[in-house]
Amino acid sequence: MHQIDLNCDLGESFGTYKKGRDEEILPLITSANIACGFHAGDPSVMGKTVRLALDNGVKIGAHPGLPDLIGFGRRNMDISPQEAYDLVLYQIGALNGFVKAEGTMMQHVKPHGALYNMAAKNKDLAEAIAKAVYKINPELILFGLFGSELIVAGKKIGLQTANEVFSDRTYQHDGTLTPRKEKNALIHNDEQAILQVTRMVKEGKATSQQGTDIEVQADTICIHGDGPKALTFAQLIRDSFAKSNISIRAIGDK
Amino acid sequence: MHQIDLNCDLGESFGTYKKGRDEEILPLITSANIACGFHAGDPSVMGKTVRLALDNGVKIGAHPGLPDLIGFGRRNMDISPQEAYDLVLYQIGALNGFVKAEGTMMQHVKPHGALYNMAAKNKDLAEAIAKAVYKINPELILFGLFGSELIVAGKKIGLQTANEVFSDRTYQHDGTLTPRKEKNALIHNDEQAILQVTRMVKEGKATSQQGTDIEVQADTICIHGDGPKALTFAQLIRDSFAKSNISIRAIGDK
Amino acid sequence: MHQIDLNCDLGESFGTYKKGRDEEILPLITSANIACGFHAGDPSVMGKTVRLALDNGVKIGAHPGLPDLIGFGRRNMDISPQEAYDLVLYQIGALNGFVKAEGTMMQHVKPHGALYNMAAKNKDLAEAIAKAVYKINPELILFGLFGSELIVAGKKIGLQTANEVFSDRTYQHDGTLTPRKEKNALIHNDEQAILQVTRMVKEGKATSQQGTDIEVQADTICIHGDGPKALTFAQLIRDSFAKSNISIRAIGDK
Amino acid sequence: MHQIDLNCDLGESFGTYKKGRDEEILPLITSANIACGFHAGDPSVMGKTVRLALDNGVKIGAHPGLPDLIGFGRRNMDISPQEAYDLVLYQIGALNGFVKAEGTMMQHVKPHGALYNMAAKNKDLAEAIAKAVYKINPELILFGLFGSELIVAGKKIGLQTANEVFSDRTYQHDGTLTPRKEKNALIHNDEQAILQVTRMVKEGKATSQQGTDIEVQADTICIHGDGPKALTFAQLIRDSFAKSNISIRAIGDK
Repeated sequence: MHQIDLNCDLGESFGTYKKGRDEEILPLITSANIACGFHAGDPSVMGKTVRLALDNGVKIGAHPGLPDLIGFGRRNMDISPQEAYDLVLYQIGALNGFVKAEGTMMQHVKPHGALYNMAAKNKDLAEAIAKAVYKINPELILFGLFGSELIVAGKKIGLQTANEVFSDRTYQHDGTLTPRKEKNALIHNDEQAILQVTRMVKEGKATSQQGTDIEVQADTICIHGDGPKALTFAQLIRDSFAKSNISIRAIGDK
Repeated sequence: MHQIDLNCDLGESFGTYKKGRDEEILPLITSANIACGFHAGDPSVMGKTVRLALDNGVKIGAHPGLPDLIGFGRRNMDISPQEAYDLVLYQIGALNGFVKAEGTMMQHVKPHGALYNMAAKNKDLAEAIAKAVYKINPELILFGLFGSELIVAGKKIGLQTANEVFSDRTYQHDGTLTPRKEKNALIHNDEQAILQVTRMVKEGKATSQQGTDIEVQADTICIHGDGPKALTFAQLIRDSFAKSNISIRAIGDK
Repeated sequence: MHQIDLNCDLGESFGTYKKGRDEEILPLITSANIACGFHAGDPSVMGKTVRLALDNGVKIGAHPGLPDLIGFGRRNMDISPQEAYDLVLYQIGALNGFVKAEGTMMQHVKPHGALYNMAAKNKDLAEAIAKAVYKINPELILFGLFGSELIVAGKKIGLQTANEVFSDRTYQHDGTLTPRKEKNALIHNDEQAILQVTRMVKEGKATSQQGTDIEVQADTICIHGDGPKALTFAQLIRDSFAKSNISIRAIGDK
Repeated sequence: MHQIDLNCDLGESFGTYKKGRDEEILPLITSANIACGFHAGDPSVMGKTVRLALDNGVKIGAHPGLPDLIGFGRRNMDISPQEAYDLVLYQIGALNGFVKAEGTMMQHVKPHGALYNMAAKNKDLAEAIAKAVYKINPELILFGLFGSELIVAGKKIGLQTANEVFSDRTYQHDGTLTPRKEKNALIHNDEQAILQVTRMVKEGKATSQQGTDIEVQADTICIHGDGPKALTFAQLIRDSFAKSNISIRAIGDK
């Protein structure tokens, strides 16, 4: 029987600013990527989100981002590998404070936004991030884009890795995501999205925009947590997986 | 033989801004309070300072402060106990990331500036801070002003505590520090400062501004790390203690 | 015929975080207090809000706050008068950049949250703020709590001032607001709120919690911009004032 | 008689962090680029620096940078032209608050660090910045790298521009600066630096690294304000210009 992890970015509120529907999405996912205060989140939000994830039996991961609250960590910044190492270590550590205080363990780390995208392509950044994760705790699982430099770097240093795939994005014949600025980058049809992701999980394959079959390893699927449509889709993916005999469980559960 | 810990605030540089003489003061102290990015310090400075402390065999502590970089954490802010708990947990965790990455352990936590002062008098804040320290790791030693609410709270929750005394501050007959705005708050004469602190360590007593003897428990002495005078004084205190058969060692070394 | 200004805090979104219903409340008010990036708002939000206010023919004011985004500027901070002067000047100037870029003028300044409350009671802070406003432009109108030190300071330095009253807060026999932590601090009944505020405008009087009549000068009324109830109440107040022959117009319109 | 402006970045201290030797360099320059709180500087530092510049009869300019205090505004960030427009407007406005409060006028705007470099090459960013400057005050002079897109954009919108040259950097045959990572990018010999800059001012020419003569327009020279060597060099350049009959005066002085 196939198994898959469903992850979602959580804890993105900040001060009096609310973002996301954490309480509603948590029952539908298995791994929570919790913002660590650089691109979103603050200490009080982090504490609450850790407790909320625990209440829902959802595994906890750190979601470190660039120091850019205004840009929500989505604007590329020209940081050095050493800076990436330091800011990832800082943020994993910070979240770990709340995790330890609740007497539990962190499962994984998934970089956010521009940091995730830069680490998908830039080998030096990827290795710096993987090193930070490994040094703080070699048992942590590193989440990265399927086929990315981050996954390569994680494996190289000896970390367990989880290849992330997207249900709502199309793929190119070389296995990369179709860039967002191109048309057909997004799959707007839910049924088509479910079909793609089900095939990725069961067959390890997807149909590229060029019509060819590509090999894909799908360990975890990114679920969006914003908006009512996101909740409906998360439920739909769960129902479809149940019918397809795909077991939904956290990557760290063996 | 009496023994005493010498602690100093370190890692207070930020970005391209330099503060303190960390390399020079480290050989003279036994416990380093490392800033955690809220009132001073940044991820890269924290990493460097942790490694520097380790190179010097100095024990590492977190030095959490208020989120006030412009005010260097010295301006009182009206935060709730829950906010204090969360921001202390965040900062200890963040520093712990660097400590774990270097394969070592943190020894202690000492709140900074206005947070230290507020926690000396405000029982609720003190208990929130002590709880954060205890929950992240009950083996951590909590540094607080001698006789403060923070020490009371630390003991109450079950933490080892370290009473901090100041060589360059005078005391009142009730055991509190003479407020800085009053005259005679500071001891400017080095010899007098050494005499006071030596007596506190050996006899557990000090002479108050009112002329009476007060009981003082001195577990650790705050050493300043800024300016050439600070280095000279740190050396002077070490030399005097050697002559007085006072052993200088980290509070956590037994 | 009596006249009154209706003011509302606007531009409180930040980065990807949305707050308030600026588009909906703007047609109902006459003066907009626009956040300046310290407790809320960011450069892009400020630009948009200035243009939105202009589109609605609403007068623009700066709404400077404490440097505390996490706390939304509501936590008291122990700042010096010089620091208050500097941070108010900075924020008024920043907003004025957008105002000048649109070829228009700023009408007023209203401090936010904890800065507003501290300036209501602390004479030194009040005078520092009034001085900042006066020095940047003596034509600006200073908004402050009715009867506050801020109003006194504004008059003293030569500024036009606007006494702000609250429709949903009760008053004490000495003219101060009933503190929020006491019961009966808030008026939950809309009709009662309208009655109080109408009397304040027309008669310059209100009934205190002690049952006595107090003298109140009402130049501007604080309208809340958050939530559907706020919009309904703003409309209600407009309708009631129309019936009571109270003209609603911006304080700076003569 | 030739004339030249000497500009220097000032007001780069932050909170308790000191940077630069503003008091010492001010008597040697004619235009001060004052940091506006994003990459360096804070409201209190800005106020002090404006007053200090006035005391020295030095013209005041805004020195807006990227929102990156840790990186001192030197790390490229992927901001949109609209974001550039908004953050430049905000920062010019903020500094203008202090300038207006002192009853004087701002002379110029010079973007800082990565913003300066990005605006030298990126036409859209350059035009957004030029537009912000023009909209806040069309009388402001825009400082940019000689031959840069920023100068082009400034002229296009109708601003007076000032081409900035560097005494300690070498030039390529196409008029661009030799990139810092290449050898010979910097001129370490003071005499050679003086010769180059003198020729640029008097003849409008420089010798490129390829040995060819290039045309250069030198309206203002960037003087460094950090370190004792900077002060010596600034004095040397003044002495040399006196001998070469080059008049040193602010760009805005006619």
